Amino acid sequence: MTPPLLTGASVEQKRAELKAYFQNSWDSYDSLFSLINSHEAFYLRPEKLRHPLIFYFGHTATFYINKLILGKYLDRRINEKLEAICAVGVDEMSWDDLDSSHYDWPKVSEVIAYRAEVKALMERLIDTMELSLPIAKDSLAWVILMGCEHERIHIETSSVIIRMLPLQYLTPSEQWQACAFSDEAPENALVAVKGKSVSLGKSAEDHTYGWDNEYGQAQVEVKDFQASKYLVSNQEFLAFVEDGGYATPEYWNGEGQQWLAYTRASMPRFWLKKGEHYYQRNLLSEMPLPLDWPVEVNYLEAHAFCQWKSRQSSGYIRLPTEAEWYCLRDKIPTDLVDWQEAPGNINLEYFASSCPVNRFEIDGLFDITGNVWQWTESAIDGFNGFEVHPLYDDFSTPTFDGKHNLIKGGSWISTGNEACRSSRYAFRRHFFQHAGFRYIHSEYREIPAIEVNHYETSGEICRQLENHYGEPSLNQDNYPQQLAKRLLALTEKYGVPREKMLDLGCSVGRCAFELAPAFDHIDAVDFSARYIQHGVRLQQGQSVRYTCENEGDIVDFKEIFLSNLGLEQGKDKIDFCQGDAANLKAIFTGYDLVLAQQVLESSYDPRLFLTNIRQRLKPGGLLVLVSDYSFTEEVTDKSKWLGGIKVNGENVTGFDGLQQCLTGRFTLLEQQEITRVLRSNRRHYQVSELQLTVWRLENG
Amino acid sequence: MTPPLLTGASVEQKRAELKAYFQNSWDSYDSLFSLINSHEAFYLRPEKLRHPLIFYFGHTATFYINKLILGKYLDRRINEKLEAICAVGVDEMSWDDLDSSHYDWPKVSEVIAYRAEVKALMERLIDTMELSLPIAKDSLAWVILMGCEHERIHIETSSVIIRMLPLQYLTPSEQWQACAFSDEAPENALVAVKGKSVSLGKSAEDHTYGWDNEYGQAQVEVKDFQASKYLVSNQEFLAFVEDGGYATPEYWNGEGQQWLAYTRASMPRFWLKKGEHYYQRNLLSEMPLPLDWPVEVNYLEAHAFCQWKSRQSSGYIRLPTEAEWYCLRDKIPTDLVDWQEAPGNINLEYFASSCPVNRFEIDGLFDITGNVWQWTESAIDGFNGFEVHPLYDDFSTPTFDGKHNLIKGGSWISTGNEACRSSRYAFRRHFFQHAGFRYIHSEYREIPAIEVNHYETSGEICRQLENHYGEPSLNQDNYPQQLAKRLLALTEKYGVPREKMLDLGCSVGRCAFELAPAFDHIDAVDFSARYIQHGVRLQQGQSVRYTCENEGDIVDFKEIFLSNLGLEQGKDKIDFCQGDAANLKAIFTGYDLVLAQQVLESSYDPRLFLTNIRQRLKPGGLLVLVSDYSFTEEVTDKSKWLGGIKVNGENVTGFDGLQQCLTGRFTLLEQQEITRVLRSNRRHYQVSELQLTVWRLENG
Repeated sequence: MTPPLLTGASVEQKRAELKAYFQNSWDSYDSLFSLINSHEAFYLRPEKLRHPLIFYFGHTATFYINKLILGKYLDRRINEKLEAICAVGVDEMSWDDLDSSHYDWPKVSEVIAYRAEVKALMERLIDTMELSLPIAKDSLAWVILMGCEHERIHIETSSVIIRMLPLQYLTPSEQWQACAFSDEAPENALVAVKGKSVSLGKSAEDHTYGWDNEYGQAQVEVKDFQASKYLVSNQEFLAFVEDGGYATPEYWNGEGQQWLAYTRASMPRFWLKKGEHYYQRNLLSEMPLPLDWPVEVNYLEAHAFCQWKSRQSSGYIRLPTEAEWYCLRDKIPTDLVDWQEAPGNINLEYFASSCPVNRFEIDGLFDITGNVWQWTESAIDGFNGFEVHPLYDDFSTPTFDGKHNLIKGGSWISTGNEACRSSRYAFRRHFFQHAGFRYIHSEYREIPAIEVNHYETSGEICRQLENHYGEPSLNQDNYPQQLAKRLLALTEKYGVPREKMLDLGCSVGRCAFELAPAFDHIDAVDFSARYIQHGVRLQQGQSVRYTCENEGDIVDFKEIFLSNLGLEQGKDKIDFCQGDAANLKAIFTGYDLVLAQQVLESSYDPRLFLTNIRQRLKPGGLLVLVSDYSFTEEVTDKSKWLGGIKVNGENVTGFDGLQQCLTGRFTLLEQQEITRVLRSNRRHYQVSELQLTVWRLENG
Repeated sequence: MTPPLLTGASVEQKRAELKAYFQNSWDSYDSLFSLINSHEAFYLRPEKLRHPLIFYFGHTATFYINKLILGKYLDRRINEKLEAICAVGVDEMSWDDLDSSHYDWPKVSEVIAYRAEVKALMERLIDTMELSLPIAKDSLAWVILMGCEHERIHIETSSVIIRMLPLQYLTPSEQWQACAFSDEAPENALVAVKGKSVSLGKSAEDHTYGWDNEYGQAQVEVKDFQASKYLVSNQEFLAFVEDGGYATPEYWNGEGQQWLAYTRASMPRFWLKKGEHYYQRNLLSEMPLPLDWPVEVNYLEAHAFCQWKSRQSSGYIRLPTEAEWYCLRDKIPTDLVDWQEAPGNINLEYFASSCPVNRFEIDGLFDITGNVWQWTESAIDGFNGFEVHPLYDDFSTPTFDGKHNLIKGGSWISTGNEACRSSRYAFRRHFFQHAGFRYIHSEYREIPAIEVNHYETSGEICRQLENHYGEPSLNQDNYPQQLAKRLLALTEKYGVPREKMLDLGCSVGRCAFELAPAFDHIDAVDFSARYIQHGVRLQQGQSVRYTCENEGDIVDFKEIFLSNLGLEQGKDKIDFCQGDAANLKAIFTGYDLVLAQQVLESSYDPRLFLTNIRQRLKPGGLLVLVSDYSFTEEVTDKSKWLGGIKVNGENVTGFDGLQQCLTGRFTLLEQQEITRVLRSNRRHYQVSELQLTVWRLENG
């Protein structure tokens, strides 16, 4: 069955399609679980790092209810306890909450009854809901599609767990028949693939449902490479095993060595050895190792195989990246919604198992899609323009951590969204799915990967990013923009040339970007690289991602680009550098204008900074200081505070201290006040009334 | 010499008076220090808890310069180093910085030269300054008077230190002659004094200079009492000494016992015993104990004497309070500026020492003013309306701590302001001055004292006080006033009777005061007595004092009254109580309106609070919740947060949690937003956008 398009002319026809798709997803799930012949098996944990199957059995129905309640489409729960216990899955790490004593699992009969109730409710809802076309992300129909696709994911992941159950608990089924064919594997070979510029990301206008991580855009330049003709077969992998691959640490990266030490693995997870003979476990049966079927391994094993294989080759043998995989995928002109017959062992159209690696050829390459998922070198990341869906804000973002690698292409049991060209699934590198790999050969060591663009989560830095690039708070104008305007007015008023400027305490850089069109050169310096890195990323045309606290643990995800902010002009005139205001390198000199943004109160020696700064200015140059004079003992030894203290028993303010330091060498031209608002969360703001003082360096 | 009046018709005559008064103060100081015949003596520390005399010699000139610079009347220092080292005196406590190695004292000759330079500068300044009449507190002339009076204080306190120097370092002088007469003491007796309502505090329109603590107003009801006819003489005190007074702990209060243990004192500080004979040290000489001169002791010794004396009397023997002293002082119709001849041994008009206690009589009582200062029971405090002078903001406030007791009446060396009726000096109770005491006899145990009104300094509480009663910040209307207006509008809109209201989380109380005129009764409850106490003080018509951080260590001092805020109407309809919102006493019930101000996020169990609150309301009553939903683990265990969390994997906001708790029993009528600004200091504010939700309790 193919997923409904988001578009269409007839609402009632779409309603019928949605209902059919919902029912098909639901019934497939039921069908899969009906293979289990004993309630006892629902409570086993064949994989210790995952929940027992009873959780997954209840989970997909629970998901509908939870999202409907969150979206305010439903105002009461069906079964509060079950919906609590079946809500949160695990990420297969040892720290996930897998202590069975924390779970009081429901009976199978209870889940069956619950599923029936939810199904009826969903059907009524689909029959009666408001529906308009195209289906938009903020509509109930989208939530229903989300539930269907969520259930289809769990058809696949549950099938992996069922594949780990002892066979005695499973009943063979007509509907779930494994492939009956196997033989010697064909010899693998390398096939040349032409490099190109690959455009990644699903368009917002695409007519099929997509998960948040699929949307957006990225462009990757792929060089020519060679791809293995076939997926790596059991036979090809067996050579690695028999060559002592699992016992040779050099083939394994650090993470792989840790995994080996923890699991003591000596062969792929679904292989077993009885005497001298290897067997393979499929969903419902065991068979002598099918040599021409694709091997199923995790990323770490695939990577080790490539290292082993590299020893026998010139150049580099490795996994493809996501972009390289698309160079293959582009050979198939169709996608799930418009193919008549699947171009691979996928979508449950052929077998309830893998099949030989030489069955589905396109342009000299086999199994571009289907059979088993294919591990890539790419850690998953959002594309430019990534936005979370508000009803499922943690579907993707927790995996954008550089620790989850993409699998591409789908397996025999991938249906719906999973079987589409744009689907992107990512798992921890030690995770098992119905996944194997194709290797590629490249002359280049460097992997044309997109760098993983983490979300900045440091509250301190995120508040700066939001202050510079976010929405205005409390009806105040954007702070660095205001500041830049004042500096332009000051240079004009005092006839200061706009040749060379120093922006000290530049933070995440907006003031420099605002001023860049007007100056010949700007050095933007901050003490901490943690701030500057974001300015640099933006300057390079990349996006910066960060989170904003909304309320408590609830955060909003933000992404910014210079181009969206209209700040690209002149950006390359800025040099971002890390530097200590109290001890600047000699090269920072000859400025017409020095701006010091909250440098005084951030310095361990503000007096030293003030003493030395005149060496950086041209005669007649302007020094603009912005400060709240909030010295703290954590940053500045109290003996070095400019003010906010009693000196010889008398009150000395920060501004007094400033005057003491600068008078003589500098002339105070004017004082202004400027307001800065830092947003702490949705309901809290820190407001600072900063003083801006303007000083002119005396000649000579 | 008498101090210049602030008023007058001729500016030039006033200028001449000021100059003469300045010179007289200055020359008197020089004259006193000229008694020291060896430079070595300037560096001794006869009193280990005070600086050596060289500090005081330089200090009074330094004071002029420091205040002129602070007031921007002068833009450069005379001697930076000397002005630093001679700036800060000590409060005679062991933790003052008295480590000599921290001080690099100047030479005597340097100080002499410095004094000459400052004197010349001051004379020029007086000759040329702008002057208008009357002299206002913010004028330069006031600063000059302040300097003169400051120097006169140090004439007295330095004379006490000189009195402790070995005699070999001092040269007798015609100008500084001790009284030559002494004899047996007259027998003391008690004289009836009529009680009355005493008005304390100097009027802002008074025509003489005053220190900040003298201004303002307080009213004290004094009951009839009897006062000792004479100050306690050496002879009268000797009986206490010889009766083992210093060795009998029962006569000494806790502080006195500590002092005894630390000093091992066995007689007054200026007595000495050679063989069987007692002697007394005066400024420049020693003499056999003059039995009819007043004894000089600290408060602790005076108090012990009274305890001893009480054993021989019915009723209570104790020191007078400040107000009781004024009952005596009122017998003298004149003040320094208008008397022809001093009505006591004061103003250096008679002797450079004490004199017999039976020389200066007024209306049957002797030495009402002069001879020695008289200790009182009253800890110094500012009167209502107290305001610090901005150029000397720590003259008084550090002594408003309940540990500094007032001395009244002046001594033989008290001149200028010190000799005036309104003068108020206060010292630590173990401190020595030329001070003794008069005792009184009262039938009442209770002392008619003004309670010491400390400045609240807790930042958290001060921010609340400023939020409730201070100046508006960031152009926002006063927050509790806004809130009260909204409540009045809501009760009107929903037709809720204004009989009984509960204000939970009332903090320092303004919302209750704002609403009191409109309601029959308000219970104002907060978890912390530290907040409520301020509401109670205000309700009782007292003032509340607090500090606001200005910048760093620099604070502003504030004082508020209900009457100044127009909040007195209905105030007695409020009952302030301490209470736990999650566990309220049963008496808090039957309300038409319950307001809960940030109670949710301050409660260890907000859900329990929400569950129980309906028992407190009348059917149909309104519940108004104000919250920012900023739950923290310090206050609320995370399992009890209403929101800002993921529940079963889904985002739940505080408002969601609220709805879950209240829906069913309550109807949500409306939601509003309300802004609160807390001022952290002059340049920093915390802004909260609070949600206000209005709920009606369903009937039955």
